[in-house]
Amino acid sequence: MPGKTAEEMALDQKEISVAEFFEKNRHLLGFDNPAKALITVVKEGVDNSLDACEEAGKLPYLNVNIDEVGSNKYEITLKDNGPGIVKEQMPSIFGKLLYGSKFHSRKQSRGQQGIGISASVLYSQLTTGRPAIITSRTDMDSPPKQFKLKIDTIKNEPEILKEKELEDDFQPGTEIKVVVEGKYIQRYHSVDEYLKQTAIANPYARIQYSNPEGEDYDFERAAEKLPPEPKEIKPHPYGVELGVLGRMLKNTDSNKVLSFLQNEFTRIGRTSAEEICRLAEVDPDEKPENLNHSEQEGLLDAMQKVKIQRPPTDCLSPIGAKLIKNGLGKEIDAEFITSSSRDPEVYRGNPFQVEVGIAYGGELEEMESDKVKVMRYANKVPLLYQSSSCAITKALENTDWKRYGLEQPGSNGTPKGPAVIFVHLCSTWVPFTSESKESIARYPKIVKEIKLALQECARDLKRHLSRKQKGKKEKRRKKIFSNYMPLVLENAVELAEEGEELTIDPIMQRVIDEELVEKVEEAEEVEEGDVND
Amino acid sequence: MPGKTAEEMALDQKEISVAEFFEKNRHLLGFDNPAKALITVVKEGVDNSLDACEEAGKLPYLNVNIDEVGSNKYEITLKDNGPGIVKEQMPSIFGKLLYGSKFHSRKQSRGQQGIGISASVLYSQLTTGRPAIITSRTDMDSPPKQFKLKIDTIKNEPEILKEKELEDDFQPGTEIKVVVEGKYIQRYHSVDEYLKQTAIANPYARIQYSNPEGEDYDFERAAEKLPPEPKEIKPHPYGVELGVLGRMLKNTDSNKVLSFLQNEFTRIGRTSAEEICRLAEVDPDEKPENLNHSEQEGLLDAMQKVKIQRPPTDCLSPIGAKLIKNGLGKEIDAEFITSSSRDPEVYRGNPFQVEVGIAYGGELEEMESDKVKVMRYANKVPLLYQSSSCAITKALENTDWKRYGLEQPGSNGTPKGPAVIFVHLCSTWVPFTSESKESIARYPKIVKEIKLALQECARDLKRHLSRKQKGKKEKRRKKIFSNYMPLVLENAVELAEEGEELTIDPIMQRVIDEELVEKVEEAEEVEEGDVND
Repeated sequence: MPGKTAEEMALDQKEISVAEFFEKNRHLLGFDNPAKALITVVKEGVDNSLDACEEAGKLPYLNVNIDEVGSNKYEITLKDNGPGIVKEQMPSIFGKLLYGSKFHSRKQSRGQQGIGISASVLYSQLTTGRPAIITSRTDMDSPPKQFKLKIDTIKNEPEILKEKELEDDFQPGTEIKVVVEGKYIQRYHSVDEYLKQTAIANPYARIQYSNPEGEDYDFERAAEKLPPEPKEIKPHPYGVELGVLGRMLKNTDSNKVLSFLQNEFTRIGRTSAEEICRLAEVDPDEKPENLNHSEQEGLLDAMQKVKIQRPPTDCLSPIGAKLIKNGLGKEIDAEFITSSSRDPEVYRGNPFQVEVGIAYGGELEEMESDKVKVMRYANKVPLLYQSSSCAITKALENTDWKRYGLEQPGSNGTPKGPAVIFVHLCSTWVPFTSESKESIARYPKIVKEIKLALQECARDLKRHLSRKQKGKKEKRRKKIFSNYMPLVLENAVELAEEGEELTIDPIMQRVIDEELVEKVEEAEEVEEGDVND
Repeated sequence: MPGKTAEEMALDQKEISVAEFFEKNRHLLGFDNPAKALITVVKEGVDNSLDACEEAGKLPYLNVNIDEVGSNKYEITLKDNGPGIVKEQMPSIFGKLLYGSKFHSRKQSRGQQGIGISASVLYSQLTTGRPAIITSRTDMDSPPKQFKLKIDTIKNEPEILKEKELEDDFQPGTEIKVVVEGKYIQRYHSVDEYLKQTAIANPYARIQYSNPEGEDYDFERAAEKLPPEPKEIKPHPYGVELGVLGRMLKNTDSNKVLSFLQNEFTRIGRTSAEEICRLAEVDPDEKPENLNHSEQEGLLDAMQKVKIQRPPTDCLSPIGAKLIKNGLGKEIDAEFITSSSRDPEVYRGNPFQVEVGIAYGGELEEMESDKVKVMRYANKVPLLYQSSSCAITKALENTDWKRYGLEQPGSNGTPKGPAVIFVHLCSTWVPFTSESKESIARYPKIVKEIKLALQECARDLKRHLSRKQKGKKEKRRKKIFSNYMPLVLENAVELAEEGEELTIDPIMQRVIDEELVEKVEEAEEVEEGDVND
């Protein structure tokens, strides 16, 4: 049989650049189809802008503009009022995949991979052959810089086509302009919806948006103060693995194992460090790089055994129960809104926190679907796709909504009712199921926390629904009384005239009341039945 | 507010190596949890070995061995009889992510990304700190070479710890040995099941396997001949995008657009090439690199408009209906097996083909679940995870199984019954939903083809079930006749004695028969009812 030899096969082996990889696998980045591609480009730009504004301590003000410039071709322009980008960094940030500031940092941010925005540039050149135009200005004292660039896919390096300084009134901040193959749709999976949901979860951001139909939106602020900037933390000993520990031991500036443990990890003080060394039978004064394989194993083992405080949670930036309520209230005219923000938890050494909001009734009575609308968020970013594989969906479906007054078909499924359920997970590292960041992996600990948060809000909802139900009954009772009052008065007058005393046993009175209510209800049901037949 | 400046932010920006990226995102590669990790390591190794054997024209013979070497630690050894790997390539193939021969090639293969096997090495060093040991020998005339290596995660380059020539009787082929954190389980999501399913779809491969419980399996061959080696093809004009076309025009060796079109694409002959140029208003003699942006757009546009034959399909290597039947028959003792192999189709310029097999009854009557068991495959590789997001699941659930004699709860869902449904999709480029290659993206064209293939087999199944049903009725009728025969004979004798002629109206006869059958059936049902009560 004519097969290849090892030598022949060797000739075919070669390196694959990460840009080539994602060009071919662009569905992994959210560029599966034209409608989704449009959202993905906007999303990656908005993520970056909001992150940059917050990091610079500026209240975000974003302008998003989408124009149809040809058949299935859209020009997307996104401008922010962020800190701007220094000239030297502009080409790499937009023209190189796997480049960024957030991958190695342990604090909550929207971006975490260093792929998103350059993927938009990649998609743009792939589908329309057009370069991206990036403009940025750091302050009014220096001129705006502009690059026209593509990505050299084979090398995964920026290819600068044109570079210039602008002389105009471009306000400080960054602007990106790309032309992509896309499809503009409205309704649920749309840029409009995406930005509306973004506004809800980021009530301190102002977003102006003009869609391809020429409609203008202005999502105004519901808060005039930025949340506290999350702090960067060091790795927690419970979340580290042997390979990473080995690398840390090799690269540390600390001269002794004892100081290494204290300097390179969060929550390890001198006492814990000593205990770890003792348990691991490692000399605390040993040079970290000298530990052999079994000593490293021992050290890791001991780190898991010693009781160490949870990581600090100021690396997280939750929205907060109050702002969730405001955010929902700003965009939805509901009869009832509740929200809840749980205490932070930890999975694999990563702090995370779950927040939930429920809006019920009011304009939601007019929703087209009889199912509740679920808004999923990770690090304040709306997740529109891949809900079926998401931890949030799993937690939602595993909650017994009938107990809380909502219908739920089957034993588990999406509940029904005129409600919006808002779920936000924030973490220093959200375990997304793919690079497109559309769905949160179903780690049991995360699913459990989400369920607990849902139940907290669901209890409030139930109280509201019971009150409403009770209010309805009360109203009906009053109606009955007012109907029967003439009769009662008549009898009372009669009795009074006969000289009898007007004392009614209170228990008896209740029985009478309830009987009356029941009778009237029966009568009403028959009436309704007639109408329905 | 104390925010960062653009200059401060610039200091945080840096490159992320693809190895770092996947170390942190290892769940994207199938290393979400210890049980799955064990399967993933075996899977990546088996994929590579089968690909290499087939490419070298050798009937595959694989040895897989898993030993428990510590708490949650397993040593996995995989040896093949493939062509071996030349010494110079060994470190990169196993010690560098995004390196390989299959990414740039347009023909069906199990591997397609150049990530899998090096990801196993990465996972091994991350969880146990242990290097991989790779041994390979290309023929008996040269000695076996062995590398002990890790991956330098920061650089994404192999880090060779030891390198030597062996002097032993190591047979030509390649062996990889890694020690990983894992969990060995049995049943559905297990290495045992994975290898069994692999054996079914690769009946020309022999796989010997020894699991951590010390149980030995020998999946023997059901075919002694390799399928024809798939041929590499050039891109099809219908599947190319502007960015890629631009790159091709720039990098081609052809001097004229006319020859460029003929040389760089499949199915473009001189006539089509001329027509494309004419439609695009591009000079056929122009140098390809000289085309400007709008000429490139025009060329692409024209390429989509000109009628061009489908791509050749000898780049595919289907299993074939006969071997699917043999493969299923070899591993499952069923009462009925059918299979079907559809003609190839094309999505986005990529040829693909769907094959289905159904096994029914026999030992499957003893299955624990009342749902059918679905075996999903892509390019002959079993897919055990993420079925809910897979095109195969979607097609299966959208098929109306009640029409074909299987129960199906709800209007669409997994059908019930003692059956195994085998579905294979092969393509030059399978659109997986993640790097872990567990699920096929739901492109409508692919879902449709799978559904058609399922229906083909389902019709066979229905015929079988009807025959069986008819057989049952026939049997029962015979029983009735034999019960009533004495009576009939008695009457016949009586009539004969009375001198009457024995003619019975055939219609009347049928009515009598059916009435008898019905009565007996009723009687039997009552009996059964009694038993059930």
